[in-house]
Amino acid sequence: MNMQKASTMKLVKTIEEIRSQVAAWRKEGLSIGFVPTMGYLHEGHQSLIRKSREQNDRTVVSVFVNPMQFAPNEDFEAYPRDMAHDMAAVEEAGGDIIFNPEPSEMYPSHFTSFIDTTETTELLCGAVRPIHFRGVCTVVGKLFNIVCPDRAYFGQKDAQQLATIRRFARDLNFPVEIVACPIVRESDGLAKSSRNTYLSPAERQAATILSRSLELGRKAIENGERTPGKVIDLITASLKSEPLARVDYVEVVDFENIQRVERIEGSILVAIAVYIGKTRLIDNFIINL
Amino acid sequence: MNMQKASTMKLVKTIEEIRSQVAAWRKEGLSIGFVPTMGYLHEGHQSLIRKSREQNDRTVVSVFVNPMQFAPNEDFEAYPRDMAHDMAAVEEAGGDIIFNPEPSEMYPSHFTSFIDTTETTELLCGAVRPIHFRGVCTVVGKLFNIVCPDRAYFGQKDAQQLATIRRFARDLNFPVEIVACPIVRESDGLAKSSRNTYLSPAERQAATILSRSLELGRKAIENGERTPGKVIDLITASLKSEPLARVDYVEVVDFENIQRVERIEGSILVAIAVYIGKTRLIDNFIINL
Repeated sequence: MNMQKASTMKLVKTIEEIRSQVAAWRKEGLSIGFVPTMGYLHEGHQSLIRKSREQNDRTVVSVFVNPMQFAPNEDFEAYPRDMAHDMAAVEEAGGDIIFNPEPSEMYPSHFTSFIDTTETTELLCGAVRPIHFRGVCTVVGKLFNIVCPDRAYFGQKDAQQLATIRRFARDLNFPVEIVACPIVRESDGLAKSSRNTYLSPAERQAATILSRSLELGRKAIENGERTPGKVIDLITASLKSEPLARVDYVEVVDFENIQRVERIEGSILVAIAVYIGKTRLIDNFIINL
Repeated sequence: MNMQKASTMKLVKTIEEIRSQVAAWRKEGLSIGFVPTMGYLHEGHQSLIRKSREQNDRTVVSVFVNPMQFAPNEDFEAYPRDMAHDMAAVEEAGGDIIFNPEPSEMYPSHFTSFIDTTETTELLCGAVRPIHFRGVCTVVGKLFNIVCPDRAYFGQKDAQQLATIRRFARDLNFPVEIVACPIVRESDGLAKSSRNTYLSPAERQAATILSRSLELGRKAIENGERTPGKVIDLITASLKSEPLARVDYVEVVDFENIQRVERIEGSILVAIAVYIGKTRLIDNFIINL
């Protein structure tokens, strides 16, 4: 993407200002799309912004790095941030406004409330990051109430997050349509992620093992394999062939409830999390049978 | 109130229908007030409806008895219901529409999400009814998302509930103004409550001990008492003078955070819960110093 010229993108830091901008658009009868991100935008995020621009008159992009979804031992402080880059990336993809509040604007004194959902968050990343999805649900619910969009856009890269947001938005009747967008990949298959910037050149090369291993699993299913354990073993063995990779999980679940299945049928999510050096990467595919 | 003539009040049972009615009002530029209740309406509820009617063009009243806020040992099944009475009561007070969904409409299959808040729910009723406020926050958040009102009306009778709803609505940025309304009492001082119908004549007489004991506490504070323990002892002794009364709690807390205070100053809630026979009644006063 072309980041040469300085962006004229409107940057909003307060809840009051974003509400008044959205209210003004509403008065004109305009529809609102919303793309919640944690910034450091790549082409995956830009694909969400482009989709929102196609389906709505105006698009709000938030880049708030949400402290509530990081555990104390996780990478909140180190999480990459680059506002000039993000403003240019939003402008290029056709977004209209960036929302980047301070943590104190989102989490005032005596902040003690939360949104959570139990079923979709039990396994996969929920099992190893127990407070993570409570933080995600809470900040996304807050942002829905602040922006009041018609539609909100999420990447299938974070498939469990997508299923979790769909679930709490349905359960709590948030009046917003959740739109899922496909994974965007590098030319060698690595799923785009802000955390890819953590990888050394050797790790970056090793990281291709995630998508290559998933492809083996997908082909086995396409060729008739219906036993989750067999697909898991195949993918795990492939991942272990890469010396820099350490498997966190390999799971086969139904995509709606994120629960283990006895047999591969219906809408199935095959999801993996793998450490490459110190960097934890996730990837997945969804298959409908 | 006059319940003689059959009500022509509009009764809505589905989320889709209430949303489409509210959307039609919004298109006309009308403001929406919302009074969430559990039905069996009395003059306390009617005072909320009247206040909403004063401040808004249209008023929605929900009468959904929310199973999620009752523990298994509590009175969900026995909770009093009378739709014909409620329709007449809403009409008399000037409400425009009653929302009464089935439990399955509000809690569909795989319902697994919730809203909760920790600080304001620790003490008082939260201490003895641990899942109660999670159920209240969740259903009120759902109803806010379904009705999308400008303002919502709550009675000070349920003071901890009021503080809890204010807290989660603020924390989660629900775009609705929370309006508090004063306690409505019978001529002998008993706070109006749907649960008063459970009382036998002797218990009904004994129940006046709640408001009379609170009045003693209020007078002590007005006369300069600033030590919470002294006020608690005074009220507790008065409650114990009634043989049919069994004290559940007597507490002095700050009204915003519902936390105990060392000294009576600022905005203070003095709250009690008392069993009269098998019926648990609550009452309170708020004093600003």
